[in-house]
Amino acid sequence: MKNKRKNKLCETTKELGEHRIIALIQKNIELMPNMPVPFGDDVSAVEFGNGSLAILKTDMLTNKTDVPKEMSLWQAARKTIIMNISDFASKGVKPISIIVSLGLPTTYTSKDIEEIACGLNAGAREYGAYIIGGDTGETSDLIISASLFGTANKKDLMLRSGAKKGDTVAVTGFFGKTGAGLEILLNGLKSTKKVKEKLINSVIMPKARLIEGLTLGASGAVTASIDSSDGLAWSLHELSKNSNVGFMINNVPIAKEVYEFAESNQLNPLELALYSGEEYELVVTIKTKLFEKTVKEIENIGGCLIPIGTVTKDLKILSDINGKKRIIEPRGWEHFKS
Amino acid sequence: MKNKRKNKLCETTKELGEHRIIALIQKNIELMPNMPVPFGDDVSAVEFGNGSLAILKTDMLTNKTDVPKEMSLWQAARKTIIMNISDFASKGVKPISIIVSLGLPTTYTSKDIEEIACGLNAGAREYGAYIIGGDTGETSDLIISASLFGTANKKDLMLRSGAKKGDTVAVTGFFGKTGAGLEILLNGLKSTKKVKEKLINSVIMPKARLIEGLTLGASGAVTASIDSSDGLAWSLHELSKNSNVGFMINNVPIAKEVYEFAESNQLNPLELALYSGEEYELVVTIKTKLFEKTVKEIENIGGCLIPIGTVTKDLKILSDINGKKRIIEPRGWEHFKS
Repeated sequence: MKNKRKNKLCETTKELGEHRIIALIQKNIELMPNMPVPFGDDVSAVEFGNGSLAILKTDMLTNKTDVPKEMSLWQAARKTIIMNISDFASKGVKPISIIVSLGLPTTYTSKDIEEIACGLNAGAREYGAYIIGGDTGETSDLIISASLFGTANKKDLMLRSGAKKGDTVAVTGFFGKTGAGLEILLNGLKSTKKVKEKLINSVIMPKARLIEGLTLGASGAVTASIDSSDGLAWSLHELSKNSNVGFMINNVPIAKEVYEFAESNQLNPLELALYSGEEYELVVTIKTKLFEKTVKEIENIGGCLIPIGTVTKDLKILSDINGKKRIIEPRGWEHFKS
Repeated sequence: MKNKRKNKLCETTKELGEHRIIALIQKNIELMPNMPVPFGDDVSAVEFGNGSLAILKTDMLTNKTDVPKEMSLWQAARKTIIMNISDFASKGVKPISIIVSLGLPTTYTSKDIEEIACGLNAGAREYGAYIIGGDTGETSDLIISASLFGTANKKDLMLRSGAKKGDTVAVTGFFGKTGAGLEILLNGLKSTKKVKEKLINSVIMPKARLIEGLTLGASGAVTASIDSSDGLAWSLHELSKNSNVGFMINNVPIAKEVYEFAESNQLNPLELALYSGEEYELVVTIKTKLFEKTVKEIENIGGCLIPIGTVTKDLKILSDINGKKRIIEPRGWEHFKS
């Protein structure tokens, strides 16, 4: 027993993985009374009267694990902002301002710093937000940690909880490009020039679905929402856990470049679409009777909303695609383990 | 000319130093219109109607430069929170919530992570705030970046600008302990056991002057304010630059342990008090006719407010102590250079 306890205390971050590390931290943190958004949702929030919420989010990019060598400093800085804005998008919240902590190695030059600053600014301005402050210090590896601020009405916020049996599950785009792109960037897999460019671009120049998220938030039709940054499968499991429901998925929209890449590399395109991360689509559940109306609203702002399945009472997450039934496993991108 | 330009682009972070790095970043960031607090003050702010401000701050602790080996992980985590709360204190703002980005090396264990979480929680709860969310990722060295949120009325905020000729300059405590403590911790200087303990403690278990800051903010007597985290001399220079005034300093309150340490190590106690960093006192300018009243208010909450000089029109920062006149130089703790 003593040994077991000792071993448990000595598990390293690599053995624990990101999700258990976060659970371990939460266990030791005193909860703020009446938190309007629970720990573990995509953003944090504080009420400041009349149901108005301050919405806060921090997400960190570390050179060691998040920056393939093909990615420029400008792109890495921009991506840090996009990662954070995607979480705001998934809750239907407009980012107003951003503060940044920047850890710089001593070898970085003025030019590097200017490139990072321009990338941060570009990411923020692309989505109407501003960088308004920050901090810098010396680190072994580049670290960029961005913290976003925005406001929302409590009743408009789309949380991970709230999905109801019979709701329609939908996504804002096609999947698998970042998974394929990372296979090219990290594992050297090959593809045609045109496909390769698109796949790599999805990793190094991601977009956040902010207009879609704001439109979905205003629609009043969404019952639960998350972004797919840890992968589509993982996102479904998070929605399931937080809403206490299951899913029957009958359609996974896969990008056409992913089919081409998968075929030439003898990979399963569905695997790439379900279990890759760093893809910033929104995964939402929508009241079925409002679904068509919501699709039109999203099309009106130039986006798309693709139905992928139905919310079920049974907690399982199943797929039934081309007549083949399977369980969608709780796997995906996880820091420390991936 | 071409060569000169090339050299300028190639200056490393070490050659640039923290202050020029920050200037370089600011130069490349598009300013938010009508920023209620300018870039470079201790906090950032966003207006959300009726003169109400959301106050935001991020400050990062990096193991490489900010954590002497005698400091536990619990203490390092707590200190990250204190550093941030001190900035809120200097503006008279109560911290409500904190989000944290945590960069962990893969060698860290469950026990290490729990220790960090407990330290973060302890720092927050000590000052009435709560940790409400965060992010974690893999880094070569421990990185803790905390972001604070609070609210304030625009008219109550104490900025670095606002000091007027004739105002009284005052501080909330005695100086030099962290400078002496860092000499012991980093350079192995000696002292008696009792003094050593107090000096080291000032580095590893700092306090933020939050009650003092909130009381000063509410007094309506303060014209400018900053914390002394980069050293007393540097803080005076920042107030001078931002308020477009100078100072005549005739008293620098030095902790008695610092006199003892300085004597036994043949160091100048005034140097330790003026030019050390990581000391979290407040340095404020106060309308002279309200000074005595303000001193009483601060004493009522158990603090102290010590006059150290007068605001002058001349931009110089001079001291006249024990009949010896000198210029207080713009030196202090600076990341990358120190």
